[in-house]
Amino acid sequence: LQNNNNQQTKIQKLSPQQGRNIFLVLSYDGTSYCGWQKQTKENSIQSVLENAIKKITGEKVKVIGAGRTDSNVHALGQTANTIIKSRISEEKFLKALNAVLPWDIRVLKVVEKPLGFSARYSAKRRWYRYYIYNAEPLSPFWARYAWYYPYKLNIKLMKKYLKVLKGCHDFTSFCSVHDESETKVRTIYKIGLTVQKPLVIFDVIADGFLQHMIRIIVGTVVEYQKKNIPPIKMKEVLMSRNRTSAGSTAPACGLFLMKIIY
Amino acid sequence: LQNNNNQQTKIQKLSPQQGRNIFLVLSYDGTSYCGWQKQTKENSIQSVLENAIKKITGEKVKVIGAGRTDSNVHALGQTANTIIKSRISEEKFLKALNAVLPWDIRVLKVVEKPLGFSARYSAKRRWYRYYIYNAEPLSPFWARYAWYYPYKLNIKLMKKYLKVLKGCHDFTSFCSVHDESETKVRTIYKIGLTVQKPLVIFDVIADGFLQHMIRIIVGTVVEYQKKNIPPIKMKEVLMSRNRTSAGSTAPACGLFLMKIIY
Repeated sequence: LQNNNNQQTKIQKLSPQQGRNIFLVLSYDGTSYCGWQKQTKENSIQSVLENAIKKITGEKVKVIGAGRTDSNVHALGQTANTIIKSRISEEKFLKALNAVLPWDIRVLKVVEKPLGFSARYSAKRRWYRYYIYNAEPLSPFWARYAWYYPYKLNIKLMKKYLKVLKGCHDFTSFCSVHDESETKVRTIYKIGLTVQKPLVIFDVIADGFLQHMIRIIVGTVVEYQKKNIPPIKMKEVLMSRNRTSAGSTAPACGLFLMKIIY
Repeated sequence: LQNNNNQQTKIQKLSPQQGRNIFLVLSYDGTSYCGWQKQTKENSIQSVLENAIKKITGEKVKVIGAGRTDSNVHALGQTANTIIKSRISEEKFLKALNAVLPWDIRVLKVVEKPLGFSARYSAKRRWYRYYIYNAEPLSPFWARYAWYYPYKLNIKLMKKYLKVLKGCHDFTSFCSVHDESETKVRTIYKIGLTVQKPLVIFDVIADGFLQHMIRIIVGTVVEYQKKNIPPIKMKEVLMSRNRTSAGSTAPACGLFLMKIIY
């Protein structure tokens, strides 16, 4: 869940002879994968996509995603791009990918873009959603897609905590210590929650996210409302720039990458 | 998916000393099970429930369900009852069952009923729902819960077919040849479909259903609209009392037992 602001330097420069820049919109159920990023185990969304493309065009390519979703994190609108040499049409490539990919990864769109376009670095905003299942017992149909938290939630207080995080801040406190981003400054454009019983739904739109950022925000907000901590404390946590001052990380399965905005 | 009308003769008569009649409301994801009914393989909803009760009370019981859902058929409101001797409270039994059962089977309610009450034979109406996913590609989040049919559907014509089936009829044409019910006469009180893009949703309420009845209805309706068959043919199929005159059986995964009405 990282982005990088010095995009100009990182966009690959290729001559038209070198390949076509293929942009993909993807939806996946992250339950069976180790996340977006390729790992040694090879059951990442990225590696499954790269293998699917190899089956279709015979080319060994690299697929760069806009959001590096963790294991068990889902996507309704992940985006990615890759450079291929094959002259296959967009429509045929879409059909072929969905024929080759497992059912839990679907390609929703295939569009050829100018070579300067990067799914990751050209992205302006990212929208993530987090689901809490706030009733007892947990519906079998939500078990893979929400954090099961059947206890009382102080929605009004949670909204106050979230308000503190809106805007441009250094989010070190809400970021995994393993995050390797050069800067931890991000801008949250929109952050809020809605209740649709039995669900509590968090929506966050930002220019980019740090590793575990939304999960730490959700985990902290739930922990703090339980302890009835005043909203001013949330501001102190943010300003401390220290991961240990925030709360625990909410489970991955409740998180959905909704949309990447360009 | 069967019921029986001579309920008076089949209700178990027990003295209060013999046990307590425990009524259960259940929700389950049928994907990993061979269906409601106990089989030799022992991965039925029924056998998992019976094993869970044995773990809690030590008693070897039989659990009778209101609807015998097939493999891959789901339930939001299945009901069942069983006779136990344990004095465990309803509330504790509910919690214990959900602690022991796998995540894809949840007990929503535990209520002690008079001994004459049968989840199956006292049921007045049964409500089932069937989901078609009518867009391309299939969402990973609907793959286990809908029939993927991405082709054009003539909704108006399908509604006309369904209208023919409303009321009290002999449904032999829409019933698996393996169904062992004494009579194939059932009354459909409500049958219809609604479009909630990308879903097409069938709702059927009847006093009872025959084996595969809803799946054969859905399969036939989809097949007939494709061939633009006039609605009068649907009436002929119904009156023929012959399974071979109807269309094919729609996939199990789209079917949900919604509610049992008493």
